Amino acid sequence: MKVHNFSAGPCILPQEVLKQAAASTIELDNIGLSLIEISHRSKEFVAVMDKAIALVKELLEVPEGYSVLFLQGGASLEFLMVPYNLMKEGGKAAYLETGTWAKNAIKEAKLLGETTVVASSADKNFNYIPKGYTIPSDVDYFHCTSNNTIFGTQMKSFPETDGMLVCDMSSDIFSKKVDVSKFDLIYAGAQKNMGPAGTTLVIVKDEILGKTGRTIPTMLDYQTHIKKESMFNTPPVFPIYVSMLTLEWLKKNGGVEWIQGINEQKAALMYGEIDRNPLFKGTVEVEDRSNMNACFLLTDESLEEEFNQMWAAAGISGIKGHRSVGGYRASMYNALPLESVQALVDVMQELEKKHA
Amino acid sequence: MKVHNFSAGPCILPQEVLKQAAASTIELDNIGLSLIEISHRSKEFVAVMDKAIALVKELLEVPEGYSVLFLQGGASLEFLMVPYNLMKEGGKAAYLETGTWAKNAIKEAKLLGETTVVASSADKNFNYIPKGYTIPSDVDYFHCTSNNTIFGTQMKSFPETDGMLVCDMSSDIFSKKVDVSKFDLIYAGAQKNMGPAGTTLVIVKDEILGKTGRTIPTMLDYQTHIKKESMFNTPPVFPIYVSMLTLEWLKKNGGVEWIQGINEQKAALMYGEIDRNPLFKGTVEVEDRSNMNACFLLTDESLEEEFNQMWAAAGISGIKGHRSVGGYRASMYNALPLESVQALVDVMQELEKKHA
Repeated sequence: MKVHNFSAGPCILPQEVLKQAAASTIELDNIGLSLIEISHRSKEFVAVMDKAIALVKELLEVPEGYSVLFLQGGASLEFLMVPYNLMKEGGKAAYLETGTWAKNAIKEAKLLGETTVVASSADKNFNYIPKGYTIPSDVDYFHCTSNNTIFGTQMKSFPETDGMLVCDMSSDIFSKKVDVSKFDLIYAGAQKNMGPAGTTLVIVKDEILGKTGRTIPTMLDYQTHIKKESMFNTPPVFPIYVSMLTLEWLKKNGGVEWIQGINEQKAALMYGEIDRNPLFKGTVEVEDRSNMNACFLLTDESLEEEFNQMWAAAGISGIKGHRSVGGYRASMYNALPLESVQALVDVMQELEKKHA
Repeated sequence: MKVHNFSAGPCILPQEVLKQAAASTIELDNIGLSLIEISHRSKEFVAVMDKAIALVKELLEVPEGYSVLFLQGGASLEFLMVPYNLMKEGGKAAYLETGTWAKNAIKEAKLLGETTVVASSADKNFNYIPKGYTIPSDVDYFHCTSNNTIFGTQMKSFPETDGMLVCDMSSDIFSKKVDVSKFDLIYAGAQKNMGPAGTTLVIVKDEILGKTGRTIPTMLDYQTHIKKESMFNTPPVFPIYVSMLTLEWLKKNGGVEWIQGINEQKAALMYGEIDRNPLFKGTVEVEDRSNMNACFLLTDESLEEEFNQMWAAAGISGIKGHRSVGGYRASMYNALPLESVQALVDVMQELEKKHA
């Protein structure tokens, strides 16, 4: 039976990517050696890294003057690297608090300097994106989280700011068009739309770096990694390779514009059913709903066990909600086909019929 | 043709590990999903992490009171984490300078406090391990590098010290018996004897942590990762899984004692030929030679092109020396079979016969 993989991350990847990754784990490009047992400085792996970087630049239309890096440590290490590299000695930063990851980012920034939370949706368990806030004009940068995996909210627009604009796009990068030129720094853990766990994408405007007056530890300094083209130390070979394959798959099929269309279809189908079916309700303000993670509850909790058995029987996997929200979360990342959303919607309608 | 893979790292892994890693990249344990598209909190991956940790403890006979972590960022990030976690505010550290990686470790420690280099082999391009040095009694810890991949030296014993003993074992961990109880902290990038690039093993005595008086950034604090059992953030799933498989392979075949015997045979064969064959000479003091990386030169450089063609024709890969040393480096990590060393020795003897 086919599994419909709604995992919130690490998450579904295209079948052809999995097959190619497996083949290259046995032997890469007929070189007689596995991808994972060659030097990262071999011409074969350098070509992988170069291609991965070129695909990021092409798919996101990254302008001149930006560097693309593949690092380690996930968004969680970026929470520290961002203030280290961008907050001036004695400087300030402003953050938008939209969920768990934003809170973690704020915590690290506070270690390095004055950090203002310009707005928060903590008052309603992060079920909306704050709006109408003011970003102080004297901050070095403003930081936001474009998509909140746990709570199912997504920023549909980004504010204007006098300082630098920094965004954690871990869970919606490559899912829709984004104007990179409006951002000074974008980062994203790979394990949603880009690849497997184990590498972090950073897109950074070169001219903003080296201006804080701080001494930055070597591995936390973006300039270290820019100078060495993400090979200052041994890079995470397999995660970068699989990211490259996933981006190739995206490009071959039509790129970000193509997947955005499909993601909008999936979200429309999913939220359409949540709103139509009297047995379910969404947890998030409608205008802030994420196209990646749809959070919803049963209106009658006594149906929980029955519903759980039904979706499990239909081959649906990974839709249990995060413990901070409860209920259900259908993560609909790039590689999830529309038919998987349809399979879930079918089960929701079956439940409705049974209790009509 | 079989490739004899002498790569210095990432390096050769057992064939059966590569096959199982490939199979699980398609589907893990008949669950209908790939290893790399399931949640790191799924019971399947939690079992992988638990097993990897248990295998480290068993194979190295890790005593009670130590934690085993799988992190990211390689030894290069450990260079920063070690002083952050172990050097007291206003404290001191002592380092042994035996090569490039030791120098990089010293650089990061100096950012955090008074760092003494107790001895260095820089005077002879790191071709020996300094001995007879004194470790100041007032340092928080002493740091050394057990094996120097680039220069081909290896510590055959470790000094006594009043403070904590910390060792970077990136390139010889699991290659020979080591008494973990003598160390307070051991770390190692996976990509030599343990697995593919992308995860870092840390073995740390719990009682030494939390005593510096420093505020440690969340991701750099070992206690963060101990509390969350290496799942504070999304771990590098594939590198940890393949490390688990490699450790299983090691255990099944007889463990560290078994591989130590084979590694000694390989080293004896290799260095025997280097010493016997008048066309070659070793670069390292005999008593400090590494069983992992044998560095050697042609005595007559005009034979270089001929020798290079001969070993390439014999299916030998990855023996070019590091640019800091020149010549050749045969890396003989755990998964390299004795027959590969024999293949290289055969080529060396063939060259000798041609020029007899």
